[in-house]
Amino acid sequence: MKKLFAEFFGTYWLVFGGCGSALFAAGIPNLGIGFAGVALAFGLTVLTMAYAVGHISGGHFNPAVSFGLWAGGRFPAKDLLPYIISQCIGALAAAGTLFIIWTGKAGNAINNTQAGAFASNGYGAFSPDGYSLSSAFIAEFVLTLFFLLVILGATDKFANGKFAGVAIGLALTLIHLISIPITNTSVNPARSLSQAIFTGGEPLSQVWLFWAAPILGALVAGFIYKTLLQNHDAA
Amino acid sequence: MKKLFAEFFGTYWLVFGGCGSALFAAGIPNLGIGFAGVALAFGLTVLTMAYAVGHISGGHFNPAVSFGLWAGGRFPAKDLLPYIISQCIGALAAAGTLFIIWTGKAGNAINNTQAGAFASNGYGAFSPDGYSLSSAFIAEFVLTLFFLLVILGATDKFANGKFAGVAIGLALTLIHLISIPITNTSVNPARSLSQAIFTGGEPLSQVWLFWAAPILGALVAGFIYKTLLQNHDAA
Amino acid sequence: MKKLFAEFFGTYWLVFGGCGSALFAAGIPNLGIGFAGVALAFGLTVLTMAYAVGHISGGHFNPAVSFGLWAGGRFPAKDLLPYIISQCIGALAAAGTLFIIWTGKAGNAINNTQAGAFASNGYGAFSPDGYSLSSAFIAEFVLTLFFLLVILGATDKFANGKFAGVAIGLALTLIHLISIPITNTSVNPARSLSQAIFTGGEPLSQVWLFWAAPILGALVAGFIYKTLLQNHDAA
Amino acid sequence: MKKLFAEFFGTYWLVFGGCGSALFAAGIPNLGIGFAGVALAFGLTVLTMAYAVGHISGGHFNPAVSFGLWAGGRFPAKDLLPYIISQCIGALAAAGTLFIIWTGKAGNAINNTQAGAFASNGYGAFSPDGYSLSSAFIAEFVLTLFFLLVILGATDKFANGKFAGVAIGLALTLIHLISIPITNTSVNPARSLSQAIFTGGEPLSQVWLFWAAPILGALVAGFIYKTLLQNHDAA
Repeated sequence: MKKLFAEFFGTYWLVFGGCGSALFAAGIPNLGIGFAGVALAFGLTVLTMAYAVGHISGGHFNPAVSFGLWAGGRFPAKDLLPYIISQCIGALAAAGTLFIIWTGKAGNAINNTQAGAFASNGYGAFSPDGYSLSSAFIAEFVLTLFFLLVILGATDKFANGKFAGVAIGLALTLIHLISIPITNTSVNPARSLSQAIFTGGEPLSQVWLFWAAPILGALVAGFIYKTLLQNHDAA
Repeated sequence: MKKLFAEFFGTYWLVFGGCGSALFAAGIPNLGIGFAGVALAFGLTVLTMAYAVGHISGGHFNPAVSFGLWAGGRFPAKDLLPYIISQCIGALAAAGTLFIIWTGKAGNAINNTQAGAFASNGYGAFSPDGYSLSSAFIAEFVLTLFFLLVILGATDKFANGKFAGVAIGLALTLIHLISIPITNTSVNPARSLSQAIFTGGEPLSQVWLFWAAPILGALVAGFIYKTLLQNHDAA
Repeated sequence: MKKLFAEFFGTYWLVFGGCGSALFAAGIPNLGIGFAGVALAFGLTVLTMAYAVGHISGGHFNPAVSFGLWAGGRFPAKDLLPYIISQCIGALAAAGTLFIIWTGKAGNAINNTQAGAFASNGYGAFSPDGYSLSSAFIAEFVLTLFFLLVILGATDKFANGKFAGVAIGLALTLIHLISIPITNTSVNPARSLSQAIFTGGEPLSQVWLFWAAPILGALVAGFIYKTLLQNHDAA
Repeated sequence: MKKLFAEFFGTYWLVFGGCGSALFAAGIPNLGIGFAGVALAFGLTVLTMAYAVGHISGGHFNPAVSFGLWAGGRFPAKDLLPYIISQCIGALAAAGTLFIIWTGKAGNAINNTQAGAFASNGYGAFSPDGYSLSSAFIAEFVLTLFFLLVILGATDKFANGKFAGVAIGLALTLIHLISIPITNTSVNPARSLSQAIFTGGEPLSQVWLFWAAPILGALVAGFIYKTLLQNHDAA
């Protein structure tokens, strides 16, 4: 049960901090944090929570990570569903809190005809810089695949594991530095779902891609790591 | 006594570095560091001092942190008052130094009818981006709550504790990346008090919120960590 | 064989993340990540992969690094060619993926008469800020020399080696903070080759410099480290 | 002798990377790294070299640091002069290399009537944002004092010393985030001297302040650390 609370709080923080920085601070004229600041914020949510509750739940905070660790032989199938449910509830609770704070400024309201509304993910007309569905799918697939390679590698028993939280958190920063203009960056189905539910409309109908591509990338990463990279012979 | 000196110097550095970067460097045209630079500066004050004097005083530099550690069962009640007094004196000394340096530029003077004057915190008309009192309260409450969850988790005896200074410092960066536009970011009553005293006027009358919300958030975090997350059974 | 896969994936990630952030995110109006964001992205590709697969292959991801480690007596000559081939194939595969995603936006096409097209490196008319061939050569030589000094020093058996991945990754960030305006920053022949092949034209004919200067700098660094800095006497 | 080479290369890298990023990359329109990027660059020169050659020379790269460590009882008086000479030679060699690369762009020439020319430090009319001599002196004094408190604290035998390179490097980043607009940030007499010699004119006649204030701050920090913070009783 402590594990599920840890996943709840960790995913809450990921959505509150990552999507919150995008909503509140990215676009302030002259002083705003821009995409680089949002990228740093997403990464720091994971870095901070990895050191805070990683020793409790492993620190997934993302259904694709849970799937990828399962595919890599590091996470039991029976825990997949409870972890993913905790993550989605945490994400939804964070999105709700963001909605309450954000609408405390006069004029703030969700316009779901606009790309990136309420920090939602999208492709085609809902890609922040106009990238197609196939570009979005490939980007989310490749980025989640490498996110999981970093996670599986950095937590390998032969790796310098105490730095895993730094490497994994900053991998998420890197992923956002690359891809916010493409899809507003998901690589995390829970984060996409929570923002899509509050946004509704076309962003909600596009949310399938942000479950399919990240989970597929994570599964392929688990397979690649086990077959091509992991050392099975060492002591 | 060494502990109280450590808290004095640490909180001085937090206010001098965090509020100083906002005053001197945030808004320089074209080259200024913006909100993201200020966020980094606040976090680095804590990261650097945590490794410098954390082994002396524990490295709180913030009355809400002292309250939260007390609520989490990690800090004795009898040390609360001396720590908080040291922190407030350090913050005031830093604000005074900032005032002297800052007014060494022709034309610099505090205009306390302006949101964020002298790096003060505020809500409503004194929120940098116009957020209401209730948005400000919720934001400060939630952000301090999670700040303390990171602190309590990263310093847990089962955690990878050598990285606590990195995780806690960068948590403060993350908190500023999210919320400078909402309240100019406090999560630290000492930092709010020192800037409010020099600013006076409405920012000073709003300083109650930046004691109430962070301390309440910290207390709730101590309770949550103890009851829902901490492992009481392990060796 | 695991080593060569590790170099393939690591160099893929370096090019995909570093050049990808430049292509997709650097120049977005108002919110773009700019040169600083690209510098952070390049560094984080190495930091993340160093902790992920450094324990497998040593984490070179760069022919100049392999040459420099050989010159410093840390890497066997017989592994040079296979490592470099893996690195170049990884870089090319990443450039190909970037091309597919990037051309999924209407209007995106490589214009090889423009400095920095498709994140290619260049000098003279193809230097982003108009620096001459000799400035470009000196910059790439000096920067790779110091990159290798950091690598050789941070992985020295007397050094605090667990932090090598942090120091080396952030050294690459620093190198980009200095030199994107000079050459679009190489210090990595594989990264230069992959982008030049896709770009063609003058950027491709300039690629010789981004093999010659980095490899020369790396060889000199190996010699300097061995003769002037390394401790041969200690236990 | 290896120690002096380590100080030479470390200080070369500090000036080449820190001042180089300011010269080449800070002011590029739209994409430039700004003061925040320069701040990061200065910090990363120290972070990277601390892990690279810190085990050889201790990693000072700055005459004020050598003085402060001496005042704190951590560095022998007899090594002060050779260290400082190596640091100044390294800084001058770096400034010379920067001059050669920088003048390889048409139109680049040092205009020593301009604040911050060739990354020089200054006050009054030569302060980037117009701060007075006394503001400049106080800022350099306080910032170097705290820089040394971080150094003395993070390398204390009771501290979490493996992180000292991270804390010290990022302290220099923080210092630049605060004070580039005030003095273009020195806290390092060698870095100030090398740029002033190439710049000449008024910036050269102001260089005294960037020896006096940082060294004074460092000496006071050594005294404060020894008397108020250091634990003399523990095992």
